[in-house]
Amino acid sequence: MKIGFLGFGEVSSTLSAGLLSKGADVSTCVEGRSLKTKGLAKEIELNLCKSNRELAESSDILISAVTPFQAVEVAKEIGKYSKGIYIDINNISPSRAKEALSYIENGKTADASIIGSVRKNGLNVNILVSGPYAKQFAELNQYGMNINIIGNEIGQASAIKLLRSSFTKGISALLFETLYSAYKMGIDGEVLKYIAETEGEGFRESAVSRIISSAVHSKRKAEEMEEVMELISKSSDAKMSRATSEFFKQLYNEINGIEKRPENYKEIFELINKKNRKN
Amino acid sequence: MKIGFLGFGEVSSTLSAGLLSKGADVSTCVEGRSLKTKGLAKEIELNLCKSNRELAESSDILISAVTPFQAVEVAKEIGKYSKGIYIDINNISPSRAKEALSYIENGKTADASIIGSVRKNGLNVNILVSGPYAKQFAELNQYGMNINIIGNEIGQASAIKLLRSSFTKGISALLFETLYSAYKMGIDGEVLKYIAETEGEGFRESAVSRIISSAVHSKRKAEEMEEVMELISKSSDAKMSRATSEFFKQLYNEINGIEKRPENYKEIFELINKKNRKN
Repeated sequence: MKIGFLGFGEVSSTLSAGLLSKGADVSTCVEGRSLKTKGLAKEIELNLCKSNRELAESSDILISAVTPFQAVEVAKEIGKYSKGIYIDINNISPSRAKEALSYIENGKTADASIIGSVRKNGLNVNILVSGPYAKQFAELNQYGMNINIIGNEIGQASAIKLLRSSFTKGISALLFETLYSAYKMGIDGEVLKYIAETEGEGFRESAVSRIISSAVHSKRKAEEMEEVMELISKSSDAKMSRATSEFFKQLYNEINGIEKRPENYKEIFELINKKNRKN
Repeated sequence: MKIGFLGFGEVSSTLSAGLLSKGADVSTCVEGRSLKTKGLAKEIELNLCKSNRELAESSDILISAVTPFQAVEVAKEIGKYSKGIYIDINNISPSRAKEALSYIENGKTADASIIGSVRKNGLNVNILVSGPYAKQFAELNQYGMNINIIGNEIGQASAIKLLRSSFTKGISALLFETLYSAYKMGIDGEVLKYIAETEGEGFRESAVSRIISSAVHSKRKAEEMEEVMELISKSSDAKMSRATSEFFKQLYNEINGIEKRPENYKEIFELINKKNRKN
């Protein structure tokens, strides 16, 4: 069974190195990529194709692991050449996954999502898959992969990842808003402490990393929440995800001085951060 | 030291029984109350005053534990007779606590909040206190109480309780909205499972009880969120608490058929409930 990777970033290089070590036949194409990427591909010693078209024509399972912005484009480009099964493993919304996979002319497709960190978990990282060819993709578990079939519909695997991450972002926004109020009243430490008592072990640590990550990644989080809202709006008013989305937009603007207000979230971020380093 | 309780509901009866068992001198007034309440007071064998005025005049520490609606009224009524320290332990917002305590003419006041369940924890339940006479109230710890001083300002103790419970309600709303979308896509079980993986042990169980409690207590939660919004609006846009408040209002309307829509949260409540009983 020939396995091909479209794109050769962290996901592709980690998974292909793992698959090769288990004796799988793995190819990619690094034409036009940086010297560093080419060097990495040579080091791992996987087969190199001259073009994505050649890769698509020769793979039994072709895995698209490009950047979110390239996911649709690359599917469009090689859609008519893909002779085997085409798996979109990119971090995109269900509707974008459907769009990308609609270009695969033989219809042998599935939508996959990585849950957790490829860097930390390597070949064993949890991968969810849904769609007509989910089962065939899961055959790669024979090489030590950890692929879990969710259902038959394209978009389900992407939706699980998106909803999970939207819930997490919502908690961060809630926490930020709550602790900011608490801080203004001089009771931020106590509120965090008593929330931690209800929410259980480890909440305090994760709360701090959530506050930091909210501030640092506010732009990306605001963008991702736009996709979530599109998804959640299909079934409800999406009140909470809309508020989360707006919260991150405002946080980004405030941190970057675009929106200046006396209530500047920046100070709470800095203060909570400092305080918790001490404790 | 004479301790008096204004009101004789669960909080007063539990705490006074505990205090009496430790040898404290405890009084209340049950004039005009039900036979059941009078019977309970006799059973516990605490001192009975003829009126709240007499109770206020004879207590060194007077604890107001009435219903939230009576908190201001009772303070107004006995404000000029309270000769000792007056503690408001009612479940009210910081601004209502300030209002109530403003009627205590000698100014010997503090604002207290019960964190957790009096029924479960008895005399040892965690009580937060803030205000000028917080320290004097905490002297009751000699009788086995668990009173923790937060600060010198009236309202801080109430604010901690309110912010903590608003955060918890926000999580419930987020969870409900997220799982409803997931349910519509046939992936509610999976989304709950993968959120639980990030959120840690016990999340699944607490998620289910949060969904049930959201639906059952939607009206009360919507009302409580109004008070939270008032508090949080002082320091930010209160985007998340506003969304939480609106979420519970809508949930209440939908569950009670006031607002009929094809997207009825009732079904997700029933389904998740059923599913989780099986698993």
